[in-house]
Amino acid sequence: MEDVAALVFDVFGTVVDWRSGVAREVTRLLGDRVDAERFADDWRSRYSPSMDEVRSGRRPYVTLDVLHRESVDDVLAAQGADDVPAELRDELVLAWHRLDPWPDVVPGLRRLSARYVLAPLSNGGVALQVALARRSGLPWDAVLGAEVVGHYKPDAEVYDSAPRLLGLEPAQVLMVAAHTSDLAAARQRGLRTAYVHRPAESGGRRTPPATDPAADLTVTSFGELADRLGAT
Amino acid sequence: MEDVAALVFDVFGTVVDWRSGVAREVTRLLGDRVDAERFADDWRSRYSPSMDEVRSGRRPYVTLDVLHRESVDDVLAAQGADDVPAELRDELVLAWHRLDPWPDVVPGLRRLSARYVLAPLSNGGVALQVALARRSGLPWDAVLGAEVVGHYKPDAEVYDSAPRLLGLEPAQVLMVAAHTSDLAAARQRGLRTAYVHRPAESGGRRTPPATDPAADLTVTSFGELADRLGAT
Repeated sequence: MEDVAALVFDVFGTVVDWRSGVAREVTRLLGDRVDAERFADDWRSRYSPSMDEVRSGRRPYVTLDVLHRESVDDVLAAQGADDVPAELRDELVLAWHRLDPWPDVVPGLRRLSARYVLAPLSNGGVALQVALARRSGLPWDAVLGAEVVGHYKPDAEVYDSAPRLLGLEPAQVLMVAAHTSDLAAARQRGLRTAYVHRPAESGGRRTPPATDPAADLTVTSFGELADRLGAT
Repeated sequence: MEDVAALVFDVFGTVVDWRSGVAREVTRLLGDRVDAERFADDWRSRYSPSMDEVRSGRRPYVTLDVLHRESVDDVLAAQGADDVPAELRDELVLAWHRLDPWPDVVPGLRRLSARYVLAPLSNGGVALQVALARRSGLPWDAVLGAEVVGHYKPDAEVYDSAPRLLGLEPAQVLMVAAHTSDLAAARQRGLRTAYVHRPAESGGRRTPPATDPAADLTVTSFGELADRLGAT
């Protein structure tokens, strides 16, 4: 791993706790009209199918905010909340801009930043990533990811863009994610990979594997990642 | 200006002192074989013509590093330094990644960062901007600019990309530059504009106008910009 010069990160689930954050914002905006955790889970479950429309080429690239604005209508309808006005639906979409990182993230990234270029490589758009970073002090050097290339992960274009835009070889870029499928797609494009075990991501609904044997590294926190990479 | 939520910056001349920095690196790498300031001026003079090949569509987008690598051959030849090896020419290109900001820049950006989203909107590529920012602690929230859209300023695509990627209206984005032509092109796309008077940019070879009457603001430093925008 000595050649690694940059770390790129999946964000939803890996950097931020989307489930608690979305549920908190849903409660703030809708009160007890809906089951906030079920709302978060249902919304997230519509995430991949909505991107499939873009991945398949059936529709041109639109940001995740646009997809979230469309899918929130279905989530609201599923909980019998059809009368929520449009302005409030727009505000709900911004729940995904107001998520908090896991507790180990900011201290770990600060250590890693001294040695490595750091950037998100997420399906969330640039404005969303900027909002998350400013909210919590995530020390990104650049914002990479889906919107910059007009493709969603796991399309190759997203992974290829990281070394290209950072002026590096693919093997000099380490992809960090809590999802083995994301890492498998990154490896296909020549990136190094680090798996982060985030058992709390789904609130106990799913149990992620404890390790990813195909990854270069498995860790349980960004602090351990900094330790393993020799960041002081 | 109350609606402004993001500031985007020209970099060469506005944020960093390219002439002193390039001359310093040329001296470090070539010693007294060449006139370092004349080298910097000659290289910079080839900047706009080299981008014209891309702007006109005669060649596909390549990064400024590629253009600098090509033009450095001509600059070396003009000073009778034809025998400089290729590896050293590659290293010379990185002079543009090692430029220092004007003294007012970092304190001014720190104040502005508390209130505004900040990003470079430069013809330099992403890796170059990341290198400049890490070198000096420029507190960018994202790296925007030519490489992200595959066009060079003053193409409209570059200016349009700033509000689009930041999720803002054009009038919510303030373009900051030391060159009136850059600001004129930004205004054409609906951005607000602030002119920074940088009389030292060319080392006295050219005298930039003291003010830009067409801009929303004229300032002489990033500190004055923070003052005028009410940043504490």
